[in-house]
Order: sequence, then C-alpha cells, then structure tokens
Amino acid sequence: MNQNITRQLAPLFYPRSVALVGISSTATNVGYMFLQSLLDAGFPKVYPVNPKGGELLGVKVYPSIKDIPGEVDLAILTVPREAVPEIARECAQKRTKGIVLYASGFSEMGPEGRALEEEIVRIAREGGTRVIGPNCVGTYNPSAKLIPQFILPKESGPVGVISHSGFLFYYLLMSVAATGLRPSKGVSCGSDSDLTCVDFLEYLGQDPETKIIVAYLEGIRDGHRLLQVAREISLSKPIIVMKGGHTDAGIKASASHTGTLAVSTAVWRALCSQTGIISVDSFEQMMDALLALNYLPRPKGRRVGIITTPGGLAVTGTDACSQLGLEIPQFTAETRKQLAGVVEHLGTSVNNPVDLGLVGALAPEYYVKEAIRIVAKDPNIDMLLTAFTGPPGDDDARDRKVADILLSEIAEGGKPTVICGATPQGWPRGELRFLADSNVPVYPEPRRAAYALAKLTEYSEFLRSVQP
Amino acid sequence: MNQNITRQLAPLFYPRSVALVGISSTATNVGYMFLQSLLDAGFPKVYPVNPKGGELLGVKVYPSIKDIPGEVDLAILTVPREAVPEIARECAQKRTKGIVLYASGFSEMGPEGRALEEEIVRIAREGGTRVIGPNCVGTYNPSAKLIPQFILPKESGPVGVISHSGFLFYYLLMSVAATGLRPSKGVSCGSDSDLTCVDFLEYLGQDPETKIIVAYLEGIRDGHRLLQVAREISLSKPIIVMKGGHTDAGIKASASHTGTLAVSTAVWRALCSQTGIISVDSFEQMMDALLALNYLPRPKGRRVGIITTPGGLAVTGTDACSQLGLEIPQFTAETRKQLAGVVEHLGTSVNNPVDLGLVGALAPEYYVKEAIRIVAKDPNIDMLLTAFTGPPGDDDARDRKVADILLSEIAEGGKPTVICGATPQGWPRGELRFLADSNVPVYPEPRRAAYALAKLTEYSEFLRSVQP
Repeated sequence: MNQNITRQLAPLFYPRSVALVGISSTATNVGYMFLQSLLDAGFPKVYPVNPKGGELLGVKVYPSIKDIPGEVDLAILTVPREAVPEIARECAQKRTKGIVLYASGFSEMGPEGRALEEEIVRIAREGGTRVIGPNCVGTYNPSAKLIPQFILPKESGPVGVISHSGFLFYYLLMSVAATGLRPSKGVSCGSDSDLTCVDFLEYLGQDPETKIIVAYLEGIRDGHRLLQVAREISLSKPIIVMKGGHTDAGIKASASHTGTLAVSTAVWRALCSQTGIISVDSFEQMMDALLALNYLPRPKGRRVGIITTPGGLAVTGTDACSQLGLEIPQFTAETRKQLAGVVEHLGTSVNNPVDLGLVGALAPEYYVKEAIRIVAKDPNIDMLLTAFTGPPGDDDARDRKVADILLSEIAEGGKPTVICGATPQGWPRGELRFLADSNVPVYPEPRRAAYALAKLTEYSEFLRSVQP
Repeated sequence: MNQNITRQLAPLFYPRSVALVGISSTATNVGYMFLQSLLDAGFPKVYPVNPKGGELLGVKVYPSIKDIPGEVDLAILTVPREAVPEIARECAQKRTKGIVLYASGFSEMGPEGRALEEEIVRIAREGGTRVIGPNCVGTYNPSAKLIPQFILPKESGPVGVISHSGFLFYYLLMSVAATGLRPSKGVSCGSDSDLTCVDFLEYLGQDPETKIIVAYLEGIRDGHRLLQVAREISLSKPIIVMKGGHTDAGIKASASHTGTLAVSTAVWRALCSQTGIISVDSFEQMMDALLALNYLPRPKGRRVGIITTPGGLAVTGTDACSQLGLEIPQFTAETRKQLAGVVEHLGTSVNNPVDLGLVGALAPEYYVKEAIRIVAKDPNIDMLLTAFTGPPGDDDARDRKVADILLSEIAEGGKPTVICGATPQGWPRGELRFLADSNVPVYPEPRRAAYALAKLTEYSEFLRSVQP
C-alpha cells in the first residue's frame, strides 16, 4: 500500500483552508458560487482572492495568494488559462498543498495547450503543490464540509466517486444520493495533468470511509498502474466503472473533451477481467449494480432461485437471468415438497421459477415469506430474485409489518436477495418502499434485478479467482 | 383486411352489457372487484350472477345467465374451472358474444386440462360465443367505460395493449399511462384457447383509435398467421413486443405459465425482421421505444447529430449510439462554420458530437436552440440526440418559455429529435418537464435516448424495405 498517496492527497480532501482565486461578485462567476456553497456548508476558512480586494458575502477578499496571512491547503483557480502559470507560481511559493484548475483549453486543444499544461504542473511541483485538472471542479468531501455546489449531498456515506467529466461528477453524486446511499468523497479530476484518476482511486482505496467506488473514466494515462491499483482495491472494495470513449466514435469525442488517451473496448474488457473492475454501459446500470454490490453478501455461484407472484414475471425474470449468464437450476426434491405444502394447487409452480399465484401478491407476509425461507435453504441455489408485486396498499403500518417479516426471512436465509417490483411510477407497493429503505435492493423490473445479480456474481467470481 | 375480426370482436371491446358470473360479496372476490370497478367507471349495464340471487352494491343479482332478461354481450367467468363447461353452455344458448375465462388450471396443467379447455371452446362456439383465456382478465376499453380494475387509466389514448400475462397486462397499462400516453384498448388473453393474441393484434390493427401497439407475448399458436397479420399492420402502426420465454429456461417457465408453445430466440428474431415487429428485452425499453415511435417522424437513415452541454454526455452519447449501430458522421463544412459562430472558443467542439460547454446549460434558449437549428439542416444528419442538462431552475415561466423556443426549433427542423436529461430523481430541469409534456421524448440518460433512436431507425428501415 502506497501510504504516500494518502499523505499527499489528504489535504486536498480535508483542507483546513481553501482559496478561491478568480472570484468576482457576478452571480454567474464560478468562484462566487463556490464561495456561497462553502459558506452555506459551514466550511471553516475560505479566502476569496481578487486583485481588487474588498469583501464578498461578508468575507475579506485578498488581492493575491501571497497576501493571505495563514496557510492555504487548497486553491481553486477559476481564472482564464493564460493567468494560471503566474498564480501556480504563487501557490508553489506559499507551499499550497493542491490546486484545482477549473479552466479548460489545455491538452484537449492540441500541442500548445499541452505545453502550457505541462509548464503549470512543473511550476506547481517545484513548491510541492499537486495539481487537479485542468477542466474539472476538484474535490468534494461532506465529512470536511467541502461542498462545492449547493445541490450536492451534505451527509456522508460509503460511496467514493471519481469522474473525468465535471458535469457527470455532479450527476454521479446526485445519482448516488437518489439511490438512498451517500457519497463518502468525490473528485472531478478532468484531464489528469498531474494527479490522475489512478491516484484518486488509490486514495479512495485507502480511505476508511469509502467502502465501494463508482467512476466515470475516459482516457487512462497509466494503464499498467491502474491494473495494479485496481486489482488490489477490488479485493476489499468493489469498483464500478462506466468507461466513456471506447467505441471509435466515442474515442474521437473523448479526445476533444478531456484530451486524454482512450482505450479500445477489447483492451478495456481485458483490463476489467484482470482487475475485478465491474464495467457497466450506462449510469442506470451503474446505480443498479451499486445497490447490489453495496448491500448484498457475495454469492457462492451463479445459480438463481426465482420467486414470483403471478406468472409473467416468472417468465421474464427467467429469460433475463438466462440471457445475462446466470443459471436457473432445478430445486432439490425436498424444496419442491416443502413448496407444495405452501402454494395452492392451480396456476402455480413449485419448480424454479416458483409461481405463487395471485395469493402470493395478496398475502406476501405468508406466501412470499415461506417461499424465501424454503428456497434460501436449497443447496442448489446461490441467490434469490423475488418478484414481489401486485396492487398497491394504502396501510403504512401493515406495509411496514409485511416488510419486517420479509426482511427477517431474507436475513435468516443469508443468501443475496434482490426484489423486483414491476412498479410503474406512482404505483409502488408500500412494502417495497420499506424494503428499499431497509437496504434491500429493489428494482422496477425483472431485467434490472437480474442485471444487478449478474454484476454481483461477476465480482464474486473475481474474488474467488484471486482468493481461492 | 379481415373485417370478420372487427365484427366478431367489437362486442367484446364495446359490450352493451356484461355479466359477472361467480361473483360473491366477499371483498377479495374477483367478480366483486370487477363490479365495483365497472360501476365506478359508469359502465351502463352489469348483471351479477350467483345462484343465491339477491343484490350487490345496489345491483340485482341473477341466479344464472339464463335468468338475465336482456342480451349479454360479454360474460366474465370467475368460477372454478369445473363449473365452466355448464356456464359456457348457458352462455352459448343465450348467444352471448364472448366469455372471459378468469380461472387457471387448464392446458398449462397437462393433457386433462387441455381436454377440458377444448371442450369449453367447443361448447361455446356452438352458440357463436368466442372465448378469451383461460387464465386472463379479458378486455379493457376506456371509450366504452369497460374498466375492470380501479387502478387502470380511465381516459383513452393511442396505445393498444396485448398481454398473455394477466398481471403484466395491468402493469403494461399502468406503464403506458406513466409515460404520459394512454391506452386505446387492451386485452389480457391468457392461454389463447379460442381467440389468440394474433386475433387481437388483427383487431387492434383495424381499430381506428389505436395508432401503435405494445404486447407482452409468450407462446404463439399460429406463427404463420402472426407473420402475415403483423407484417400488414406494421405498415401503418408500429408493434413493439416483449417476448417472454425464448431462452431455454424461459421456455420451460412459460409452459407452466400459459401452457402455450414457445419459440426460440432465433425463430423470434427472424419473425421480427420479416414483420417489422420491434422486439425489446425489457419493459423499460418498451416504454422508451414507445415514446419515440409514437411521437417522432421516421428518420431517412441512421446518422445521428449529437448536441450536448458540458462534455461527458457527448462522449457517452456517442458511445451508446455507436454500440447500438447508429452512425455519428462528420458535419458538412457549412455546418461547422455556422456552429463556430455560436459556440465559445474554449472547451467546446463544433464537430459531431457538438459540445456547447457550460454556457449551453446556462442559456439553452440561445445555444441549444441555435445548435438544433444548424444541425437539423445538415444533409449528413437524419436525427438528433440533444443532451440538455445542467442545474435545475426554479422559474416555471422561464422554463416554459425556454421549452417553447426549443419546441419551435425542433418542429422547424423536422428531424426526429430526442432529449437526454441526465437527470437524477428529484433534480429535473423545468424545461425538460415542459418538453416531455409537449410530446418530445425525454430520457434520463444517454443510453436510453440512443436506444430509442435505434428502435425508431429499425422501424423506419423496415418501412423502407417494404415500401421502397
């Protein structure tokens, strides 16, 4: 473990003070928005910097970095790119720990921009100052009240977030929060001129608050180091990555976006299989996989027991699992015998998928519960997909009670269990809401539930392959 | 066109009277729920039937079908399967136009059940009575106030719905309504013992209220006729199908669900390419395709112009389009020249994908509008994917105005245009809501927007292949 990384990056995630260089009082000025948000979050020490001096939102404005009396851990530069080298020099002289380069127009614009970028990094590093960006919004850490935008979650959770894209950085943080989870820390790292996504991955791998990592990555500057770092982190923390720019057309688009090198689909796939990185094709898939990987134990194999209330979901759930490479094996004779004692005779099935019929939807606290109890004990079954649907109830106390009964059975069974709600918007069963609030992954349709199990299985198989 | 179908099925979708056979006053009795819902919807003539007679919810109960004074167009039978043959005989004698068999336990249970099913159909057909089911909930038609469940939409729209699964029938109707569209008519057809999904498809094909059809199908009894019927309907109405039971495991599950014959993935694919049926793998994909196929004109080719506000969405949108078989061609020199007059110099791109930078998100009424205007005119471009994102506004009047400006530009351009919001739950831009309300397909992330365009293209290519 490279403890140097934690030492160097900690001040960028836990800065005792932040300078906002390039701030002005216009409402659309990015520095001004940072200032508002940091003050609102209660961040203790902010130094606005503008040659004109004066005061902004009640905070004294310093003419330059060197005029700031105390130490500056992090300087966020929202000045035009031409002004950056001089300010980087001042930061280096002040031994600022890190600078965030918000501006774009560097390596993604060609050789001249790349030369400017390299010069800035050289100047900064002379003072031991590390550079995040350019073309980024930098670090976010709710534990340190380092909240660069109003809209971002202010409570801390287990999910580390890395993004090469600034906009998608905010989007990922908000999407994580929309699942009910919260980010632990995050970084928008832009063009990776000095500190790269691999450095941040390594930092989050060592961060005790971070239990799982999601990342939107475009080009990778150091594939070999990513391989080593990701492989080690994956042993204890799942890493879920949406890779932008791996089709030919996407690679071209990425070059003009971040200016970093892209990798082809084939290279990316090989890298994922060696590192245990869970690769997804959309942000929705990322959040679906996140829920399962965060909340569920690891399955011992790829065999799914499917339990459904009325029929069509048994078929579509089975199709989806099968298409995604999971197995739907026959239950043992003992399981079938026990299920036969629970389900009604007509219009149901005690095979896998179990079809509990309409009664299952009407009285899940008995039928679904019993089916979970029986199927979870079957030695042929590694995990459960339960499609738990039907008309919505309107009795919160009953729904909470039903959810508690199911929760206790799921916990008792000890096997990874996802719930599929088949719930159109505005038509949620109350039990599902309570289950989701109690850390059970609930998906709106069978394919997404099956996808989450497939990704959970992929990670579990990686772990078995390296820790036999 | 087989007008016989419309003549025979019209009384099942526009019944002047409905008999509910097997009703009782217990709250979980299905007939009782149907009665409540039909009365609530204002359906004019309902005859509850129970040997005990009496009255239910203020409506006279008849001891049997033959005791009903007037004609009965549709009889919904919620009696146990053993009681069905005798009641079917009474329906036939009364020249009832159709019966819905709610019960299960027929052909899906093996030879004995199949024989019983065949006997019922034979008895019914002797009186000219057609059978829907068994194992189904029958017809739904808001125009005729034929609403079998409280929760279903009461207003009529353009979307015909067919489902082999009763639960997924309700789910599909609700999901259609959740998109903002409404169903025209629907049928849960169960095991296709007499009337099959192909009959209902043909009926909806001829129904003037129905402009587009979505279906959840399991086994197909008459593939040859489906081929002919679907191919003809596809010329004027898109048919979107989620096919359950085409993997080996799914086929087994389907057999015990509806008892119909399943088809393999390969056969299904061949059938779709010959008929123009748009096949989807999930209900979410079905609704995403529905919006695009319902609202958008047909693209002339598969070339997408991508317009985005800040960068990461340009890359992921391009990847998604490319993976799904769409092309992202170079713009003409004229287009690039015009775009250069609109976008800012730094951190943007006038190539395809266009990256408008942060200003695009801050002032879409100028930047996004201008980009749509310019790109829609490019002869290299057949359709547009616009990722229109950024922080949410809180000014409805402004949002409505921005939406109107964009709507007018999209209409002027005349090319199919989808919007990608990249909008986590609870973080919608107001403009997007107004656009969605104005019949522009809005998707929450690039992959789903690209998928919708890919399905639109697939349908358009089918049309060109048969109408060169």
